Amino acid sequence: VLGLDVVLADGELISTGRRTVKGVAGYDLTSLFVGSEGTLGVVVAATLKLRPLPVATATLAAHFDDITSAAAAVTAITAAGLQPAVAELLDGATLAAIEAAFGPAVDDGNAIGAGAAAGAFLLVQTDGSAAEAEAEQIFQVLLRHAKTVSRADGAAEAERLLEVRRRALPALERRGRVLIEDVAVPRTRLAEAVAEIQGISRTFAVPVFTMAHAADGNLHPIIVVDRDRELDEDVWAAADAIFTMALRLGGTLTGEHGIGVLKRRWLVDELGERNLALQRQLRSVFDPRGILNPGKAV
Amino acid sequence: VLGLDVVLADGELISTGRRTVKGVAGYDLTSLFVGSEGTLGVVVAATLKLRPLPVATATLAAHFDDITSAAAAVTAITAAGLQPAVAELLDGATLAAIEAAFGPAVDDGNAIGAGAAAGAFLLVQTDGSAAEAEAEQIFQVLLRHAKTVSRADGAAEAERLLEVRRRALPALERRGRVLIEDVAVPRTRLAEAVAEIQGISRTFAVPVFTMAHAADGNLHPIIVVDRDRELDEDVWAAADAIFTMALRLGGTLTGEHGIGVLKRRWLVDELGERNLALQRQLRSVFDPRGILNPGKAV
Repeated sequence: VLGLDVVLADGELISTGRRTVKGVAGYDLTSLFVGSEGTLGVVVAATLKLRPLPVATATLAAHFDDITSAAAAVTAITAAGLQPAVAELLDGATLAAIEAAFGPAVDDGNAIGAGAAAGAFLLVQTDGSAAEAEAEQIFQVLLRHAKTVSRADGAAEAERLLEVRRRALPALERRGRVLIEDVAVPRTRLAEAVAEIQGISRTFAVPVFTMAHAADGNLHPIIVVDRDRELDEDVWAAADAIFTMALRLGGTLTGEHGIGVLKRRWLVDELGERNLALQRQLRSVFDPRGILNPGKAV
Repeated sequence: VLGLDVVLADGELISTGRRTVKGVAGYDLTSLFVGSEGTLGVVVAATLKLRPLPVATATLAAHFDDITSAAAAVTAITAAGLQPAVAELLDGATLAAIEAAFGPAVDDGNAIGAGAAAGAFLLVQTDGSAAEAEAEQIFQVLLRHAKTVSRADGAAEAERLLEVRRRALPALERRGRVLIEDVAVPRTRLAEAVAEIQGISRTFAVPVFTMAHAADGNLHPIIVVDRDRELDEDVWAAADAIFTMALRLGGTLTGEHGIGVLKRRWLVDELGERNLALQRQLRSVFDPRGILNPGKAV
């Protein structure tokens, strides 16, 4: 985001940022507004920097005995300096839910597929002019960790694999009420994080389905409860344990979706008292009367 | 910059940001501190995201009849969706100053060189696994605009070309007092900007030497005056004309070096009254007693 037009709390319109590739005039108000969840002003226009469409993509699929091995494989990929554009990880429970909801993800006759028997499934996509070369290097790393590794043969097969991932949330929503978490950990701690999440699920007897944007260390552990069950103490205790684990591993409460209402009570644990107090003072500069999305975010 | 440790004006230490690839907990204080020129706190530690070293580079050199054609060539490169890692542009006056100070930049026997006769010189480098392919595409674009285009043969030759660029500022400093400007314009307006800078130099009879990080639209027009001459009214009038031109073309007063002291008087023209007032209020939140780098930036 290079620049924004923002209507302030008193109705005045300002512009932030720039239309140039670089620019450092004054404080970076653009970044301050991005992710502020509507609490500093109302964004009415944005100037974006675009990237060219990738000239090529290559897609790999791997099955693992369990999600811990899959997470370790992703850490090995990023530790090797490889930068996949996509590294979507699904645990066995999520795969089973997808298969129960939508049937087998791909034809049995096809060597590449999610398959209910898999302990964990990883979908990797590289892009750009080095897509082929990078995919080959990632293939070699995966061979050391995975049960099977295969290469999508063409765009249609790659699309079928991406569709498996896209079905995950709809499949879980058929099972009950979902509480979607969004923690992120340093990429070297990914295997620890998924192992701890499995332990938390057992400890609190709360079903947790884990999917991840794994190359970012961004985990979506999804708690699913019966539709007629409230989000009770056990659910919140499990969520609390997940947040606490993420922070202990050097991570964050929220990789991409923000604090909103649900995570406000944990925010001080991540930011510290003084940082949070500063954020509230900044908010008051923009919204002294507290009329912008009150009760949300900081 | 992923995160910072900052000592606040009252001596308390806070941490901002994160150690994860992604994270959106609270407002982005990290970006607010970056570029704040020491006015919000004292940064004592920073967590940085690193990129892998490029696996390959390729280097091109081109001579042009004048800087306007060279600027148009760079606009054509970026408009074609090509993304050079380096696109350093030097005008003829700067080339002559380098040659006067350090002698011919490269051997006469060598086909690649700056050469005092050149109207303008452009050094382009691509990197990454597509470096070769991208350099070839850029070569083709340059052929349509340049007098000559050549390819550096190996790392030593590429280094000699980069050395030409590095000598520019030392060469100008031998000539007198330098006032280094740092405007940026949208990349499509680069040719207009360099033409206007030439006109401003003539109008105010002030020597302006132009170099640019051209693929970013970031221009360094450098005003050089005799060492015993003050930066007088004509110099400031020329600087004012350059800033006004940059803003009129949709650009910024400062692409990368900040506002400091010299550019404060123009900042309101770029930001607008209300934006600047907000920035001052933010500053007061962090530094109510005005002890952090007083008089600088906003």
